[in-house]
Amino acid sequence: MTGSICTHTFDNGLVLAAEPTDFLQSVAFTFLVPAGSVHDPPDRSGLSAFTCEMAMRGAGQRDSRQFILELDNLGVEHHESVTSAHTGFGGATVAENLPAALALYADLLQRPHLPQEQSEAARLAMFQELRAVEDEPAQKVMLELQRRHYPDPWGRPPQGEQKAIEAISIEDVRSCFAARYRPGGTILGIAGHFDWHRLRDYVGELLSDWQPGETTAIVERPPGGRYDHLRYDSNQTQIGIAYPSVPYRDPDYFQAWGAVGVLSSGSSARLFTEVRERRGLCYSVYAVYHTLRDRGAVLCYAGASADRAQETLDVTVAELARLAKGVEDHELERLKARIKSALIMQQESSAARSSAIARDYYHLGRARTLDEVGRLIDALTAESISTYLAGRPPGDFTIVTLGPRPLEVPGGIS
Amino acid sequence: MTGSICTHTFDNGLVLAAEPTDFLQSVAFTFLVPAGSVHDPPDRSGLSAFTCEMAMRGAGQRDSRQFILELDNLGVEHHESVTSAHTGFGGATVAENLPAALALYADLLQRPHLPQEQSEAARLAMFQELRAVEDEPAQKVMLELQRRHYPDPWGRPPQGEQKAIEAISIEDVRSCFAARYRPGGTILGIAGHFDWHRLRDYVGELLSDWQPGETTAIVERPPGGRYDHLRYDSNQTQIGIAYPSVPYRDPDYFQAWGAVGVLSSGSSARLFTEVRERRGLCYSVYAVYHTLRDRGAVLCYAGASADRAQETLDVTVAELARLAKGVEDHELERLKARIKSALIMQQESSAARSSAIARDYYHLGRARTLDEVGRLIDALTAESISTYLAGRPPGDFTIVTLGPRPLEVPGGIS
Repeated sequence: MTGSICTHTFDNGLVLAAEPTDFLQSVAFTFLVPAGSVHDPPDRSGLSAFTCEMAMRGAGQRDSRQFILELDNLGVEHHESVTSAHTGFGGATVAENLPAALALYADLLQRPHLPQEQSEAARLAMFQELRAVEDEPAQKVMLELQRRHYPDPWGRPPQGEQKAIEAISIEDVRSCFAARYRPGGTILGIAGHFDWHRLRDYVGELLSDWQPGETTAIVERPPGGRYDHLRYDSNQTQIGIAYPSVPYRDPDYFQAWGAVGVLSSGSSARLFTEVRERRGLCYSVYAVYHTLRDRGAVLCYAGASADRAQETLDVTVAELARLAKGVEDHELERLKARIKSALIMQQESSAARSSAIARDYYHLGRARTLDEVGRLIDALTAESISTYLAGRPPGDFTIVTLGPRPLEVPGGIS
Repeated sequence: MTGSICTHTFDNGLVLAAEPTDFLQSVAFTFLVPAGSVHDPPDRSGLSAFTCEMAMRGAGQRDSRQFILELDNLGVEHHESVTSAHTGFGGATVAENLPAALALYADLLQRPHLPQEQSEAARLAMFQELRAVEDEPAQKVMLELQRRHYPDPWGRPPQGEQKAIEAISIEDVRSCFAARYRPGGTILGIAGHFDWHRLRDYVGELLSDWQPGETTAIVERPPGGRYDHLRYDSNQTQIGIAYPSVPYRDPDYFQAWGAVGVLSSGSSARLFTEVRERRGLCYSVYAVYHTLRDRGAVLCYAGASADRAQETLDVTVAELARLAKGVEDHELERLKARIKSALIMQQESSAARSSAIARDYYHLGRARTLDEVGRLIDALTAESISTYLAGRPPGDFTIVTLGPRPLEVPGGIS
């Protein structure tokens, strides 16, 4: 593995964090812009995602079509995403095309057209995203779980809602862009083949004139109920279960991560073994660690036939509760073997590294090399994780089900 | 890029094809075993997939649980898949764990337990796969499209059918394994960090005693109707369109591939631009090239709201038909830029390379390096693709729709 990440903060607040990996010929970049869905007014939910759609539709000297053509001409595999905290613009290409690709995104960030004549097409794309979620009950239940688990506005689905999207005007989009697309709070993560000094100077040329803006405060409101059932006409029941955990920047993060790994990483992990393999209860079951800057959660999913949904929920909750009794050495050793492979494969992917570096910087104010991550994981012991779990046993569950009938939830949740 | 693929054919027919990439620390392997779903008797459809489920449940000295534990202990990211032609076993891990991982799979291929006491759990897993497809209409329409487009048994969904899976016995599984898991026709593709001579000798130690079996002939029957509608209660309509193309081993393959790229590769490609961006018609539209050994097809998907489904079908078919008029230089140049990036990223992924090498060998009797692929793509011109398309215009469509109402299909299809 390699071992150095260079960072530079420009005067306007923009952060560049970059990890050179000379054996690669590709390079990848991830812009995290502080335009997350938490800033969307309730009657304009989906505004950040709408603005992201519009931001890709022309900038600088290029109209919407020319902008997309040029990205394709540069061989950029690009993707955009909106989370509660950020709008992300990511891409990967061959090293020689990085400067031209970054120049396109510098236009997007500073000189977007946000053209009115494209706003209906963007709105349709937004509606289609909403419908796609409706067609995927397994995705929908996890979005609704987050909405109920996190304090508002942190749990809101970035896709927004039909009525709010209908109401969004081009002025809303332009105000959103003006307020939230700003260098302070923006992080550019880069990984792969590049020269650091030339990259830093070049990013400075492109983006150091970008004008700072103001940070907007977030007003939080308490989360909704602890159990909710959404009626859905199907033979399947989708089950989402969340419980609170520490955020990524907490010193105990790796203990929490290890516990979730024992639950759900690999085919021999507890949830897969106990719920699916041993009892044949459901077609999919998993738990993932999820983090915001100031709080974390474990999000657990199970999809089962409606007639076995109650048993699936009961067995899954029992497995979560059993975690409080600690983990075994052999479980942790397997997790370490799996993660060692995974870290090496991450090092071989510039795209995976560029987004990890940007996210690290957001959470920690610096990025970790994979060598450092490897050392932190090596230091875990079954005892350290068990001690953590004894102090923070899984509980205080939020549960959402989606299916033909509500389920009985464990005592203490209602 | 690197430039050498080593191959060896053992006396029992097993082929090893391997591409060393010294800059990687990972290594990946793909076994393609000639146990494809085309061999499933109609009243036992799903038998290959069932046998694959059972093959992972214990082999050699390890029972089902120990086998999975050991894979996790070795950090192997594994996956299994069944296509019409093959059952595939793939995995990736760090280079030092390759020998132990291959030893596990050598047990699986030669000394599986196929334990009766696990067969109900395997059957449940099969049912759950079936239900998961039912819950994903976009996947279902593409499976049903292939069933109607290809001569039977080539288009059969490997997942099988409920009644047939209910009828599968442990004896069926054991006979299936005995007949189809054999070294003749099995290809082991390996890519990443390894030493060729040691690998070849080691694979010989593990697998050269594997006993050859007999090849089974396939009896083909003509495909079904040209248009079929499957009623599905939803606001969405899923549209699948297929038309015949050349197989991968045809000298014209790259012409056909280029034409599909102009249709569907990148955000500026024709289908995305004309159907989604310009008209805002659907939430997803794509075309992919699909190949069997002796025939190929272009498979096209569009998902739209039910009230815009007819227009989506009409516009999509018109775009396919327009391809006969040829492609433009600038479209091909963009495609070449995109594929150059994609090839470099494939070279950086041992998992992607190991499966590409194995598939190449199946289709061509040898594997292509990415340098060779790059040269073949460089040689394409807009003129060469247009000439190909003039001789083989898209047409003879098979269409399947899934939604609340059937659609009007273009003249000549019924």
